This record gives sequence, structure tokens and C-alpha cells, in this order.
Amino acid sequence: MKTPWSTVAIVGVGLIGGSIGRALLARRLAGRVIGVGRHRESLAEAKRRRLVSETSLDLAAVGEAELVVVATGVGSIPRLLDAIDPLVEPGTILTDAGSTKAHIVAGWERKRKGRRARYVGSHPIAGSHLRGPAAADAKLFEGRVAVVTPAKATPREDVEAVGLLWSSLGSTVFTMSPSEHDSILAATSHVPHLLAAAIAASTPDGHRRFAAGGWRDTTRVASGDPELWAEILLDNAAGVARSLSKVAGFTERLLTAIEAGDRRRLVALLSKAKDKRDALEG
Amino acid sequence: MKTPWSTVAIVGVGLIGGSIGRALLARRLAGRVIGVGRHRESLAEAKRRRLVSETSLDLAAVGEAELVVVATGVGSIPRLLDAIDPLVEPGTILTDAGSTKAHIVAGWERKRKGRRARYVGSHPIAGSHLRGPAAADAKLFEGRVAVVTPAKATPREDVEAVGLLWSSLGSTVFTMSPSEHDSILAATSHVPHLLAAAIAASTPDGHRRFAAGGWRDTTRVASGDPELWAEILLDNAAGVARSLSKVAGFTERLLTAIEAGDRRRLVALLSKAKDKRDALEG
Repeated sequence: MKTPWSTVAIVGVGLIGGSIGRALLARRLAGRVIGVGRHRESLAEAKRRRLVSETSLDLAAVGEAELVVVATGVGSIPRLLDAIDPLVEPGTILTDAGSTKAHIVAGWERKRKGRRARYVGSHPIAGSHLRGPAAADAKLFEGRVAVVTPAKATPREDVEAVGLLWSSLGSTVFTMSPSEHDSILAATSHVPHLLAAAIAASTPDGHRRFAAGGWRDTTRVASGDPELWAEILLDNAAGVARSLSKVAGFTERLLTAIEAGDRRRLVALLSKAKDKRDALEG
Repeated sequence: MKTPWSTVAIVGVGLIGGSIGRALLARRLAGRVIGVGRHRESLAEAKRRRLVSETSLDLAAVGEAELVVVATGVGSIPRLLDAIDPLVEPGTILTDAGSTKAHIVAGWERKRKGRRARYVGSHPIAGSHLRGPAAADAKLFEGRVAVVTPAKATPREDVEAVGLLWSSLGSTVFTMSPSEHDSILAATSHVPHLLAAAIAASTPDGHRRFAAGGWRDTTRVASGDPELWAEILLDNAAGVARSLSKVAGFTERLLTAIEAGDRRRLVALLSKAKDKRDALEG
């Protein structure tokens, strides 16, 4: 049987990379999935869990693939894209799954001339506060959204080739500019993470026993990996600052109503928030 | 068989009041549970769901009870306590289940002389963003924490009588002053609610489709009832402002590290948040 891809290489076989591999194999979308990484143990675990069909400690293994996906933390993606490009056959499709896009795509585009690979950035909006190959899940992308972020010079067929990866894993694909992506994700992910961390860090230890479901839900993402999140927040500093100032403005309006004892105004503001939250489930 | 209480009256048979009634009956802790409310339909629903054994639209029904629990929104509790007191037998134990305590207890204490009931404020730290008798659950208080908040003049045996209610429903009981309670709950509940609402309200409608689990968790409580939450926030205005300024301070430190590109500092701050969050599960 002909599969859409004969060989796919995944660089970084953690939660995201491992889930991509497992889903490609489970859906019979790729004949071979090569997991590339730096740690022998996590590659062995990925193989044992059948997230990939083979593994390599040598980045040069990407040369065998017609599709290469970089699924590491955002801090190392630009360097890896530069290192991968000379190793692949000309025309190889290359993407990454990083949570920020503007810096990564801009870094690639600066050297677009002379590149061998056809790179388009992307971001599957799916994840977990868990990490590593043990958390990988073939269904991670089903029913979710993936964003593909071409640069101005990116050919349409390359955008489609990368979109096909995510749609074939069960996601709905949206295409937008890298900076629009980063601006949206600041609001939907990066600033919520920042505030969850601030709430968790500001709660005195002795008070946690009086925390109920509200604190638990609101701070859940603060359990995420500090190194990965530091890279994301640093990479989207401007978007985060803009989006945070919007949230701070609304918080100020709430506090003003509270301190003025203005019940009607406060109910109106909380109702607006409730409507927006309830719209998600609907 | 002798039950700990022969007759308990619950004023307000929503999520909390209904769960108290159901738990009292299910655990055979009370012979009769009278649900008192203003709406015929919700009383009928409470009876049908066996949250209470009988119902009354007339507040005077509390006169038959040896234990009266007020489980309405905090805004109406002070008025109800004043209205209930003349209706009960002298020595009746009276408590409320409101999410704030300082104003409610202070209101009672101002007229302590000449009161018939033995009132002690309390707060079962359990709940849901759902509400109403349909959401009531006999197990709502099991394994949870309840806080009992005596005033300086409250006799020890009254504190114990109210503590017994919550411990008999499966909660661990803590005793502290009303103002200490409000200060703690500002950090563990009221400010997380405020920020969840601010995040939800500040996210543009078109961006929500790009929200993943992080936004969903962080904003979940913003679905809570705006009227009930407005009352809570207004009643604990000073505690909320103090606690919010602590969170704002930490957020500022995060933002400073992000804008300075100070990865090491940012990882340290996020690690502190992660440690505090992870301590909850442990």
C-alpha cells in the first residue's frame, strides 16, 4: 500500500514529536518514521512505545526523509533548522511544531536563498502539562486546531504540503502570518500561563489547603516545564506584554467597581467574562 | 435510632444547601431536613431529588429546627440571620455557608446581646461552577476542608457544635478568625476568579478557536454566577485588593525578566510557581 509519506523524520521525540510519530504509524500515513534525538534512553523508550519505527542519535538521518518535523523546545528550533537544511535532499518538506512562530520563521527567511528544504512553520494547538515520550498519544491532534504560518515568499504548494501533515492527523488547519499567530497565542496561551504562574507563586504555602477547584484549575498550567515556557515567553516578549496590558486593564476595571462598591457595574463586567467563557463550550 | 440532629432547617436549597440536605439524609444524621426558600419550583425540585424531607416558603419554619444553616449568596446572609433569630427557640445553633466571613460575622456580633440563636459563621470550601439543586451532591463535602470562624465572644461549645456539622459531612474542620479566613480566601479563590474573568473577557472572540487546555483551565471559574461572585468580591474588597497587588507584583517580576531577556531569572520565577503548584497534588 502506498502511504502519503514513505519516510518522515521527527527531531525531538517528546510529547509532541512522539504523538506525531505514533499518529503517523497508527494511521498508516508513513512507511518509516525515524525519531532523531540526543538521548539514547528517550529514543529507546520512543521505539519501545512504537512512537517511531527507528531511531538515530545522528541528525544526518533526516537525509532519508521526504518530510522532517522539528518538535523540540522553541529555543533550539532556529539552530536545528539551520543544521538540518544542508543534510536533506533538495525539495524536502520541513516544518517545526514550536509554540511561537515570528522569530523562528524570520530566522529561516533571512537565508531563504540557497536553502535546500521547503520550510513552512507550524503549530499544532494541542498539548498537556505532561511531557516526554511517556505522555505521547496518537489522538493528541484529533479534533484540534493546527496553524500553518507561511512567510510572504512561501510557495502555496509548500503551505499545502505542511497543512496536509496536520489535517491527516485529524486537526483543522488555519493559515496565518507568523506575527498574527504570536499575537493570538499571547492571549490564548502565553498570558494565561504567566498569570497562572503568578497566582501559584503568590499563594502562601499554608494557604493551599484552603484552595478548592478554582485555584486548582486556574493554576494548573503553572506545572508546565519552566525551561520550555521561559523560551516561549522570551520568544514572544512583545506579544505577551501587549496582551498582558489588556488583561491588566480589565482587571483594573473590575477592581475599580469593587472598590467603588458598584454592584451593577461589577455584575456587568463579570457577565461579559462569563459570556466569553461560556462561548467556548458552545 | 437517635440521629445527631432531630430537625435541621436549610435556608436556600441550591448547590450548597441541597448538598448539605442530601448528605444529612443520606448519612442519617438528621431525622427531618426542612428546606426553606422563596421559589416554589426549586423547593419542589429539592424535595423530588430528596435533598430535603420537607419544604417551606415561610421562613418561620426554622422555629422547628435545632440547627439552622443559611446557604444563600453572601449578599443576603446578614439580613437573613437577623430575620431568623427572632423565629428560633433560644439556644438554637445557627450558621451560614457563605464564601466571605468578616462582614457577616461582624454584623451578627454588633447585636450579640439579646440574640436567641447561637450563631457561628462557617464556610465549606467545596463547590462547583454549576449551581442550583440539580447540581447538589451528597459527597460534595467529603475529603474537603470547612472553616469555622468564631468571633472573640463566641463560646467554645458553639464552635464545636458548628464544627460537628461539617465533620459529620466528611470535611476536615479548621477554626480561624473571620478576617484571617477572608484574607486566605482572597488568595486562594477570589483573586483567581477575578483574573480568570479578566483573561476570559480580554480574549477577542475570534481567538478562542485557538485556545487549548491552558485557556480552558485558567478561565473555567469565569463561568460562575456573576451575581453571586459580585457579592463575594464586594464583601471582601480589601482582602481582594491586597492579594491582587501581590499577584501583580509577581507578574511584574516575570514581565521584567521577559523584557530584559533574562532567561535564568525567568526560569527561576517559573520554577518557584511550578513548585508551589506541584505541592498541591502531593
